[in-house]
Amino acid sequence: MSKVNRQWLLRARPMGMVKESDFELHEAPIPSPAQGQILVRNTHLAFEPAMRGWMEDRASYIPPVGLGEVMRGMTLGQVVESRLEGYAPGDVVTGMTGWQEYALGDAGMGKIPSGVEAPLAMSVLAVTGLTAYFGMLDLGKPQPGETVVVSGAAGATGSVAGQLAKIEGSRVIGIAGGADKCAWLTKEAHFDAAIDYKSEDVEERIRTLCPDGVDVYFDNVGGTILEAALANLALRARVVMCGGISGYNEEKPPPGPRNLMNLVIQRARMEGFIIIDYVARFPEAAAELVEWVREGKIVHQEDVQEGIENAPETFLRLFRGQNLGKQLLKLADPAD
Amino acid sequence: MSKVNRQWLLRARPMGMVKESDFELHEAPIPSPAQGQILVRNTHLAFEPAMRGWMEDRASYIPPVGLGEVMRGMTLGQVVESRLEGYAPGDVVTGMTGWQEYALGDAGMGKIPSGVEAPLAMSVLAVTGLTAYFGMLDLGKPQPGETVVVSGAAGATGSVAGQLAKIEGSRVIGIAGGADKCAWLTKEAHFDAAIDYKSEDVEERIRTLCPDGVDVYFDNVGGTILEAALANLALRARVVMCGGISGYNEEKPPPGPRNLMNLVIQRARMEGFIIIDYVARFPEAAAELVEWVREGKIVHQEDVQEGIENAPETFLRLFRGQNLGKQLLKLADPAD
Repeated sequence: MSKVNRQWLLRARPMGMVKESDFELHEAPIPSPAQGQILVRNTHLAFEPAMRGWMEDRASYIPPVGLGEVMRGMTLGQVVESRLEGYAPGDVVTGMTGWQEYALGDAGMGKIPSGVEAPLAMSVLAVTGLTAYFGMLDLGKPQPGETVVVSGAAGATGSVAGQLAKIEGSRVIGIAGGADKCAWLTKEAHFDAAIDYKSEDVEERIRTLCPDGVDVYFDNVGGTILEAALANLALRARVVMCGGISGYNEEKPPPGPRNLMNLVIQRARMEGFIIIDYVARFPEAAAELVEWVREGKIVHQEDVQEGIENAPETFLRLFRGQNLGKQLLKLADPAD
Repeated sequence: MSKVNRQWLLRARPMGMVKESDFELHEAPIPSPAQGQILVRNTHLAFEPAMRGWMEDRASYIPPVGLGEVMRGMTLGQVVESRLEGYAPGDVVTGMTGWQEYALGDAGMGKIPSGVEAPLAMSVLAVTGLTAYFGMLDLGKPQPGETVVVSGAAGATGSVAGQLAKIEGSRVIGIAGGADKCAWLTKEAHFDAAIDYKSEDVEERIRTLCPDGVDVYFDNVGGTILEAALANLALRARVVMCGGISGYNEEKPPPGPRNLMNLVIQRARMEGFIIIDYVARFPEAAAELVEWVREGKIVHQEDVQEGIENAPETFLRLFRGQNLGKQLLKLADPAD
């Protein structure tokens, strides 16, 4: 076992697009667990666009990451030493231990049941899948026969959100960047149609594909794609505000859609949510999601990069649209 | 009785700010009622910002006014001839008979009980007051102790919306243009505070007056004032989208707020509505409103101009912010 804990610290508040030099690779000693703690060796890091917001020095739904602190992020790991009842070496655990090879954890770490492989535990059953679950089912409330449009549809949240609407009996159209992602949506992920925002006129394609309007729009991107969706709302449409990746790396947030008055004309609703408000319902949601995965009603894919040294570069893949599905970074193989 | 019916026809689709030359004053013969109809002499026209949208050649919640047609608008008038059971000469009736001195009506015309004076019937008990009622109480749902901000607060809808929130036990802040309007809000209309958008920094003033954030924002104006309110939302805030007068006369709608992501961070909701969806509940709402007016809990004011020839100019007062309260035009005195 390596004596050193490599970790990525936040070095600078990013100006515009986040870059590798906003982080610093640091070597620290591997810590020792106190009574009530466990030492975890992280095997996987997970990346979400929302992490970009945690790097800003402003009040939000959680405090910003401090300069010089380990970059915050979801992790999957294996217990290597335990001074906490109920946790034994070899147990697979998940938590928010950040971009580092080793971390101390406590009873707040979730245990992953054996038989649930790492990618599933880090995608559909983790924050991105749960975000899709509560956003689509609690806020979007898609009905049989309704038309649902999802942006960022090939991403970890969007792909699950769309498949959940499909399970509810809606017609589902995904917006994604590039032919590969669009093909995956319609051939693998049960979407009825896909729009390639890189090569198609999104507003015109939504209008053509949704002649009766969009009943639920699940937004991960904001910007001009949000505007295109608002231009095509059905009466009493629900716009689920999940994220706005198109604006995350702008120094000044770009202007909003010109057609917000369509919310009035269509008596529509636009609503935001944060997954941490739903913690109490995670077990019920995860149980349903895992069942749908087993039945093949939800397919998922992960983009797995390797090596702690590539953490910033892997994070950047999200903003370049390079990831097909959940963006993960593998740090180590689990021990037997 | 004059033999001529003066009426304002829509002559041109406005480009940018609506102007008098978009209308044409026309003289037509006074029509004769058929069986089942009444002839009404209009005594008052009412004006709302939303009428600007009816002049555009685009699909909306009601069809546009056709070129060459009488400009649509709410009216109050007196029956001069009746071939409709239950309606007698002298009855005071209201309807959407448009900018003209005489009109035919049918059983769709509402009868105003005697004792309800014209200004009240055309403001608090008409479309603007009812819009405030359903928007504030059904969508905004202000709670005791919450903080409510209303834009266009000295207008016919905003002033009632704010007073309704006050009746519900909330603290209410109004945004209006000019010292006179602001003084009326706090001295007459029960508002706790007022912000003069013409002379004050609205975002900073909201932040100062609402240190715990805005629980309900009732928006009549859109634009930068909407952005200022979104910057100060409380957790689970409700943004009631009633109107967006700041953009109505723009050839191309201006960009939306840069900070829509605050809806996500604050788990807030933004919702639009149209008063015509609530027709079935108008009697219940009007009964409550008239009682609150009698108790002095809702005060109202009207800006009454005179003469059919001044209809376009009176309409324009809305967009110049010249009206203090409900904008009306008196065409004639009621007969005894």
